[in-house]
Amino acid sequence: MGETVTIEDLAREAKAATIPLAATTGAARDEALQAVAQALRERADVLMAANRRDLAAAEADGLAAPLLKRLKFDATKLDEVIAGVDSLKGLPDPIGLVQSRTELDAGLILERVSCPIGVIGVIFESRPDALVQISSLCLKSGNAVLLKGGSEARHTNRALADTIRQAAEAAGMPAGWLQLLETREDVAAMLALDTLIDLIIPRGSNAFVRHIMQHSDIPVLGHADGVCHVYVDVAADLDMAVAVARDSKCQYTAVCNAAETLLVHASVAADFLPAFQAATAGDALELRGCPRTVELIGGTPADAADWSAEYLDAVLAVRVVPDLDAAIAHINRYGSGHTDVIVTADAAAAERFQARVDAGNVFWNCSTRFSDGFRYGLGAEVGISTNKIHARGPVGLDGLMIYKWRLKGQGHIVAPYADGARQFTHRRLGCG
Amino acid sequence: MGETVTIEDLAREAKAATIPLAATTGAARDEALQAVAQALRERADVLMAANRRDLAAAEADGLAAPLLKRLKFDATKLDEVIAGVDSLKGLPDPIGLVQSRTELDAGLILERVSCPIGVIGVIFESRPDALVQISSLCLKSGNAVLLKGGSEARHTNRALADTIRQAAEAAGMPAGWLQLLETREDVAAMLALDTLIDLIIPRGSNAFVRHIMQHSDIPVLGHADGVCHVYVDVAADLDMAVAVARDSKCQYTAVCNAAETLLVHASVAADFLPAFQAATAGDALELRGCPRTVELIGGTPADAADWSAEYLDAVLAVRVVPDLDAAIAHINRYGSGHTDVIVTADAAAAERFQARVDAGNVFWNCSTRFSDGFRYGLGAEVGISTNKIHARGPVGLDGLMIYKWRLKGQGHIVAPYADGARQFTHRRLGCG
Repeated sequence: MGETVTIEDLAREAKAATIPLAATTGAARDEALQAVAQALRERADVLMAANRRDLAAAEADGLAAPLLKRLKFDATKLDEVIAGVDSLKGLPDPIGLVQSRTELDAGLILERVSCPIGVIGVIFESRPDALVQISSLCLKSGNAVLLKGGSEARHTNRALADTIRQAAEAAGMPAGWLQLLETREDVAAMLALDTLIDLIIPRGSNAFVRHIMQHSDIPVLGHADGVCHVYVDVAADLDMAVAVARDSKCQYTAVCNAAETLLVHASVAADFLPAFQAATAGDALELRGCPRTVELIGGTPADAADWSAEYLDAVLAVRVVPDLDAAIAHINRYGSGHTDVIVTADAAAAERFQARVDAGNVFWNCSTRFSDGFRYGLGAEVGISTNKIHARGPVGLDGLMIYKWRLKGQGHIVAPYADGARQFTHRRLGCG
Repeated sequence: MGETVTIEDLAREAKAATIPLAATTGAARDEALQAVAQALRERADVLMAANRRDLAAAEADGLAAPLLKRLKFDATKLDEVIAGVDSLKGLPDPIGLVQSRTELDAGLILERVSCPIGVIGVIFESRPDALVQISSLCLKSGNAVLLKGGSEARHTNRALADTIRQAAEAAGMPAGWLQLLETREDVAAMLALDTLIDLIIPRGSNAFVRHIMQHSDIPVLGHADGVCHVYVDVAADLDMAVAVARDSKCQYTAVCNAAETLLVHASVAADFLPAFQAATAGDALELRGCPRTVELIGGTPADAADWSAEYLDAVLAVRVVPDLDAAIAHINRYGSGHTDVIVTADAAAAERFQARVDAGNVFWNCSTRFSDGFRYGLGAEVGISTNKIHARGPVGLDGLMIYKWRLKGQGHIVAPYADGARQFTHRRLGCG
C-alpha cells in the first residue's frame, strides 16, 4: 500500500465494492469461497513462513506462552480454517430471501428482501485464524470488510489477507472488498468513518470491546462482559442443579458463556451447597460467598465487586437469595445480559424467570455453556451480542444482513388512494 | 415532579418498569390501550383546555400559522388519536412470537422469541398527537418510553402524558413506564444515558434528526434526509413515467418520500422532458436542470448542491444521464438511502436497479410516495429508517422488538458434546 493511501481511501474503496458485491449471485460467492480455500491450500508454505517470522519476533519480545499458542498458524490451524471456508459454501445464500410479500393493490406487490449491510469493520486480537473466518463470513454474506488483527501477527495477517483478497477477486468478486488495516492509528481512523462503515464487530477482551463501543458512532455488534448466572430454585432437582452449575462454571472457565455467579434459593441452600462443593472438589474452584454461603460451606467472603465480576477463571461468586424474584432482581442488576439459567422443576417459575430476566439467552435446566452459535446450529458464528437492537445472543450469518423493500407496480401512483378513489387490499402473500 | 428528580432517575424508573412490562400478556396491554382510549375521551375538556393555553401563548409569541395548525389539538384530532389507539388493539401481540425453533438434541429445545427492546426515547416536534401515537405504540409493544415534545405544546403534552400514564397504570401496567421530559436540557441529559435507554427515535426536521444522531451513543432509528429519485429508463413507457414522476414530486411536496431529483436516460430525454413539463404545467413546479435539461426544456440551471438537496417543496432537480449505471451511480452518490424508483419495461434493468441501488426502498414502476408504513400495510408506523442495521424503510411495531433465545433442557450439560460422546441433532422444528 502506498504511503499516501489513507484509511478513508480504503473504506471508500470498500464501500464502492459493496454495490457490485450485493448484486453477485450466491453461486458466484460460493465459487469465490472455493477459490479462497484452494489458494489457502496452495500457499500453505508462504502462510506458514510468514507466521514463523511473527513467532520468532514474538519469542524475541518475550510474548507469554498462551499468546504464542494463539499466534501460531500451523498446518492444523490451516486445515481448520479451510474446513471452515468449505462449510460456509454449503450454507444457503443469505441474500435475496423474501421475508414478507404483500399485495398492496392489484398489480402492486411489496416484498421485503434480505441484503448485505454493506461495510463491516472487524477488529480482533492475536489469532490469525479469526481473519480467515470473518473474511469468509463477509464474503458469503456479500459484505465488504475492513480487518485489523493483532500487530504481533502482522506478517501472517498480511499473507492471509493478500491470499484471500486475490483469490476472491480472481474469482470475480469486486476489487477492494477486503481491506487490511495494520496499526492502532488505522483503527482510530476507522472508528471515525461513520459515513462509510456500517457496523463494527470487535473481538477480544472486555476492556478492548468496551473501548471500541465508547469510541465510535458506528453501531457495534458484540459483548463487553459475560457475567452469566445459574439460579438454583426451591423446586430444583438438586442432582441436576449440581451438574448444570458445575458444567456452567468448570467445563471451560476462560470463556464468556461460563457462569460467574451462582444464586441459590434459601430453602435449598443447606442441601445444595455442600453437594455442589463435594462435586467440584476436584476442580480447584475458589468460592466467594455471601455470609450465608460462608456459614454453610466456608470459602472466601464475597465483596460487592464479586457480583459484577467476570472472572474467566476457576472462581465463582455464590449468593443465597430469599426467592425467585430476588434472583431475577440480582441478575437484572448485576448481570451483563449474556446468558442466565434457572434450574427448577416448576414450569411457572421457569416461565417467570425466562420472561423477566433481561438477557439475550435465558435457559431452563441446562448449562450456560450452550450459548454459542455452533451449539445453536446457526451454521457459522459472527459473534455473541448483548445489544438490544438488530441481533442478540449468538449471531449467525443473518447478523450481517439487513433488508430492503422492493415494490413493483404497473404505473401505480398515490393520488387515487389519497383521494379515497382506490383502497389498499393489503393482502398477505406467501414468500415462496 | 419534584425539583430534585433528575432525568436519570426517570430513566431508571422506566428501566425498572421494563421488566414487569415485558412479562405482561397481550390481553393486559390491550386492556390498558382500551383504558387509555376511554380516559382520553373522558378527559377531552381538560386536554382541549390545556391546548387552548398553549395556543394562546403561541399566538402571543407570534408563532406562524402552519405551526399553530400543527399545535392545535381539537375534537377532530382527539377522535383521530383515539381511533389510532383503538386500531392498535386489533393488531396481534408482538411479544412472544416464536421466530425459530430447533431441537439441539433429544429434550433440548431452542427457541428464538420476540420481546420488547426496553426503554425507547422519543423526541418529536410540535404536534401533540405524536405523543399519543408513540406512547400507545410503546404500550402495545411492551416498551417503556421517555417522551419529549415541543415546548410550545407544554401544557397539552403534560395533560396527555398524565392521562395516558394514569389510565395505563390503573389498568395494571407498571408504574413509571411513561415519562415526560420537558426541556432541552432534559433531552441533552437523556442522550447521555446510554446504559438506561436502548433506542432513540427522533421525529422532526433533518437538521434536528442529524443533531440527535451526532450527539448520542444510543442507537438512533430514523432518517435525516429523504433525497428520493425517479429514474426514467430508456425502456420506460413514457406516459407511465410522466404520471409516476409527477405523483412522486407533486402529490405532496412537504414529505420525506417525495421525489427531489429526476434522472432521465439520454435517449428518451427529448421525448420525456417536454411531456413531463406539459403535465406539470399546473403544479407551479420549479425545475433545476443539468445543461442538457435546460437545453431541452429551459428552467434554472442546477448547481452541485441541487443533487443533494431535499427541497420539501415544489422544486425538482433534473439530470439527463447516459445510461442505467450512471443513474445508479448518481443515486448511490447523492441519495440518502430512502426511496428510489425506476420506470422501465425492461425487467433486467429493473432487477439491476433494485439490486444495486443502496436504499431502504427500491421501486419499479410506481411512485416514491408509497414508501410509508400505512401504505405498506404495517398496521402502525414507528417511523422511516435509513439505518443499515435493525430496521430499514418504513418501520412498524416490529422495529420496537428484539428477541431472546430460550433454551429448555432436562439437565443437559456441555461436557459430553465437547468430548464427542454426544452429537447435536440441530433439527429444525416448526414455530407453531
